[in-house]
Amino acid sequence: MTAPKPSELAFVPFVSVENMMRLVNRIGVAEMLSGLAGYIEDDFRRWELFDKTPRVAAHSKEGVIELMPTSDGETYGFKYVNGHPKNTREGLQTVTAFGLLADVATGYPVLLTEMTLLTALRTAATSALVAKYLAPSGADTMALIGNGAQSEFQALAMQAICGVTKLRLYDIDPRATAKAMRNLAGRGFELTACKTAEEAILGAQIITTCTADKQYATILSDNMVGAGVHINAIGGDCPGKTELHPGILTRADVFVEYPPQTRIEGEIQQMPEDFPVTEFWQVVTGAAQGRRDARQITLFDGVGFATEDFSALRYVRDRMQGTGLYQELDLLADPDDPRDLFGMLTRATGVAAA
Amino acid sequence: MTAPKPSELAFVPFVSVENMMRLVNRIGVAEMLSGLAGYIEDDFRRWELFDKTPRVAAHSKEGVIELMPTSDGETYGFKYVNGHPKNTREGLQTVTAFGLLADVATGYPVLLTEMTLLTALRTAATSALVAKYLAPSGADTMALIGNGAQSEFQALAMQAICGVTKLRLYDIDPRATAKAMRNLAGRGFELTACKTAEEAILGAQIITTCTADKQYATILSDNMVGAGVHINAIGGDCPGKTELHPGILTRADVFVEYPPQTRIEGEIQQMPEDFPVTEFWQVVTGAAQGRRDARQITLFDGVGFATEDFSALRYVRDRMQGTGLYQELDLLADPDDPRDLFGMLTRATGVAAA
Repeated sequence: MTAPKPSELAFVPFVSVENMMRLVNRIGVAEMLSGLAGYIEDDFRRWELFDKTPRVAAHSKEGVIELMPTSDGETYGFKYVNGHPKNTREGLQTVTAFGLLADVATGYPVLLTEMTLLTALRTAATSALVAKYLAPSGADTMALIGNGAQSEFQALAMQAICGVTKLRLYDIDPRATAKAMRNLAGRGFELTACKTAEEAILGAQIITTCTADKQYATILSDNMVGAGVHINAIGGDCPGKTELHPGILTRADVFVEYPPQTRIEGEIQQMPEDFPVTEFWQVVTGAAQGRRDARQITLFDGVGFATEDFSALRYVRDRMQGTGLYQELDLLADPDDPRDLFGMLTRATGVAAA
Repeated sequence: MTAPKPSELAFVPFVSVENMMRLVNRIGVAEMLSGLAGYIEDDFRRWELFDKTPRVAAHSKEGVIELMPTSDGETYGFKYVNGHPKNTREGLQTVTAFGLLADVATGYPVLLTEMTLLTALRTAATSALVAKYLAPSGADTMALIGNGAQSEFQALAMQAICGVTKLRLYDIDPRATAKAMRNLAGRGFELTACKTAEEAILGAQIITTCTADKQYATILSDNMVGAGVHINAIGGDCPGKTELHPGILTRADVFVEYPPQTRIEGEIQQMPEDFPVTEFWQVVTGAAQGRRDARQITLFDGVGFATEDFSALRYVRDRMQGTGLYQELDLLADPDDPRDLFGMLTRATGVAAA
C-alpha cells in the first residue's frame, strides 16, 4: 500500500522566487508598484484595526533575524526577514525574506511566498506612497544615495506614483552606480551619475538614502539639506544603523510608521525618547497634517512595518489567482479524523509504525 | 530565453507531511521519541545559551496563532503554530504547525518542515523526559485523560523513556478512547478503558492530562490526587485554558519550562504571580532538586517551549541527511550579484520588465 495522497486541506499555495519573478513581469513592475502602494494605503487607512507589535528580533554580531507578525482580525500575516550587511561580501543577499498569510478563524496557512523580491517592491511602494503625501508639489528630481538592491525599485516607484523623472545617483562604490544606471536606462528617466552625495542632492526635491552599512553613518550631514526637500531615509533600519546627522532630524518634521519600532530601529534612535514624530497613517486618514508649506523639510524615517508586508501578501494572494504561478505545498498534516494523527502516521506505510 | 535556474543558495530543504511520515516510520516512532528526548535534554542542559522570549501570540475568539522563536547563537529556529479547539468540529486539526531553522551567521534558512506531526512527537518526548526525572521510581502505570491527537504519542514516549506498561484511558467522548485503544493495541501495553477520570487514576503513578477545550476546566479535582504521583499536565496551554483544580497546585511541587510563558499560559495562570515553581532545566543540570521523596506530588505544567521545537528541528535536520526525504524549495532570491536584485528580475524573462 502506498502512502495516501494528502487531502486538499493539507496544501498551502507556495509562490517560489521563480514564480514571483514571473508574476511581477506578467503584471509589470510599475503597475505592481502602484498596486502595492494602493493596498498599503488601504491598510494604513484602517491602521487601528491591526494587531501591532514591534518586530521580534534576534540580533547577532553579524546581523539580525526578525519575525514581523500582524493581523486585521480576519487574516494573519507574518514575514521572516534577515539583515546581514556583510553577506554581500560573501555573494549572499543582505536581506532575504519569506512570508505567510493564515486564516484567523482556523489558524490554517493560506499562502506561503518568497518575500525577498516582494519586500524590495513593498519597501519602494511604501516610500513612494509616503512621498506622494509629503514631497513638495511638482517634485520631479530625486537624489538616490545608495545604489544597491533597493535602488532601482525606489526609482521606479517614485516614477510611477510621484512623477519623478530625473535621478541623480551616488554610491560609495561606483560599480553600484554603474549597475543602477544600466538597469534604469531606457525607462524614461534623465539619469545623472554623481561623484559625491553633495553633487547628487543638487536640485533634488526628494532625497532617498538607502545604504546598507550596519553602523552609525552620516550619509547626509546637516549643512547638505536645504529647505523644502522631502527626505526618504530607508537605510537606517536597525539598532546602531543610521544615515542622517541628528541636526537634520531637529530641523525636519519626522514621519514614521509605528513609533515603538522606529524609536528602536530608525534614524530617531539618535534622539530622546520623546522626540516628536507624526504617525504616517494619520496623514492618510487626515487626522494629522502632512506637508505644511514649501519650505518645510519632511523626513520619512522608514524602517518597514508588518502591515506593509501584510498588504503585499494580500496583493499577491489576490493577483496570483488564475495565473497558475504557485505550487501546492504539502505543509499541513490532515488526518481524516482530526483526533487521529497517530492513525494517519501508521497508515501512511500500510504497516504499523515500529 | 527561459528563466535561469535558481542557484544552490536559493534552495531550502523542505520536509513535507508525507516525507515526515516516511521519516518517522523509517526511524520508528519509539526510537524517534527517544532520540528527540535526547536532543531536548541536551538543549535543556545548555538552557542559558538560548535567546528566550515568550511566544508571540495573536489571540482571537476562535483560537490563537503563535510564533515561537529561539536561537543558540549559531542556529536560529522558529515555529508557527495555531491552536483552535473548535477546528475538530469542522474536520480540521486543533493544532497545525511548521518550523524553520536558519544560520545565524548569514540569516539564510537551512530547513523548512511540517511540524504538526513533529510537535506531537516533541511534546510527548518532553513529557516523558520530564517524567524520567520526576516520576516515582518504578512507575509503570499511567492514567491518560484526554484521548485526542496527542494521546498515543504520550503513551509511546512514556513507554520508551520511562518504562510505562499499563495505561488507563479516559475521554469525555468514548469514541476517542476507542480510537486510542485501537491505535495502541499490540504495542506491549496493558490497556484499560475507563468510564470516568476517577477510575482512570486508580493505581496510576503518572497522570497525564491532555484535553483540548479552551476553557477553565477541572479535569482533576483536588480530592482525586493522592500522594506520590507525578502529574503531566499538558492540555492547559493558553490563557483561559486550564485542567487542574488550584488546590492540586498548592499541594504539588510545580516544574515548568520557562516561567514567564507558563505564568501566562499554564495551569499556574490560576495562581498569584509569585507562586513558586522550579525551572526544569535546573533539574537536568543538577542545580535544582527533582523528586524529593515517594509521597511528594510532582507536577509538570507543560505548555511547550521554543527550545523543544528547536531541538526537534535539529533532530530532523540531522536525521534527514542521506534519506532523500525532502524537496529543494526555491524560497530565496539569489542574484549572481547580490546588489542586482532588479537585474535578476528583468533577466528572468529575457525581456525588460514593463
